[in-house]
Amino acid sequence: MNPELFLQLDRVIHEKGRLAILSALAATPELSFTELREMLGMTDGNLATHVRILQEEGFISVAKSYEKNRPLTTCALTATGRKAFAGYIDLLEQIVQQSKQK
Amino acid sequence: MNPELFLQLDRVIHEKGRLAILSALAATPELSFTELREMLGMTDGNLATHVRILQEEGFISVAKSYEKNRPLTTCALTATGRKAFAGYIDLLEQIVQQSKQK
Repeated sequence: MNPELFLQLDRVIHEKGRLAILSALAATPELSFTELREMLGMTDGNLATHVRILQEEGFISVAKSYEKNRPLTTCALTATGRKAFAGYIDLLEQIVQQSKQK
Repeated sequence: MNPELFLQLDRVIHEKGRLAILSALAATPELSFTELREMLGMTDGNLATHVRILQEEGFISVAKSYEKNRPLTTCALTATGRKAFAGYIDLLEQIVQQSKQK
């Protein structure tokens, strides 16, 4: 087994909630905060915390606008985030393959 | 995307260090504490903490004996641990496949 694989797993992405958020955003150009919250069954506070961490890491962008006079927050994967997520998934794939070889 | 996959990831196994320990133990009948520590490049304290958590969860068994008059601690996956690890790897595989479909 190659222990390097585990060390390389990005700590920010590896957290289950953030992994779910990035997976959702990787499948679509953008999602509103409300869509993400309902899709993932998270509380406002929990989602807001993860979104802030992902934004600070440069993995997602957050845009605030209005729709029918109501504030609308949308999230989208950045190029950096897309690359980091793809790299993380590649690592997971290697870990799975390594575990299935035995 | 299926958000259930992420919710199902076992929190004890998902931690990077413990994932590495379980992967190492899944590949071999048993490993000494020293072998694990050197293989994974962990400190004594860090490895001891993870080993205790995995033992409390029933995922690994820890045996203390002597070899050439020196104490020897060996760790092995339990049947419960092997099943939980296999289930975790199956989930990872589904997450990878889901991410690659897009």
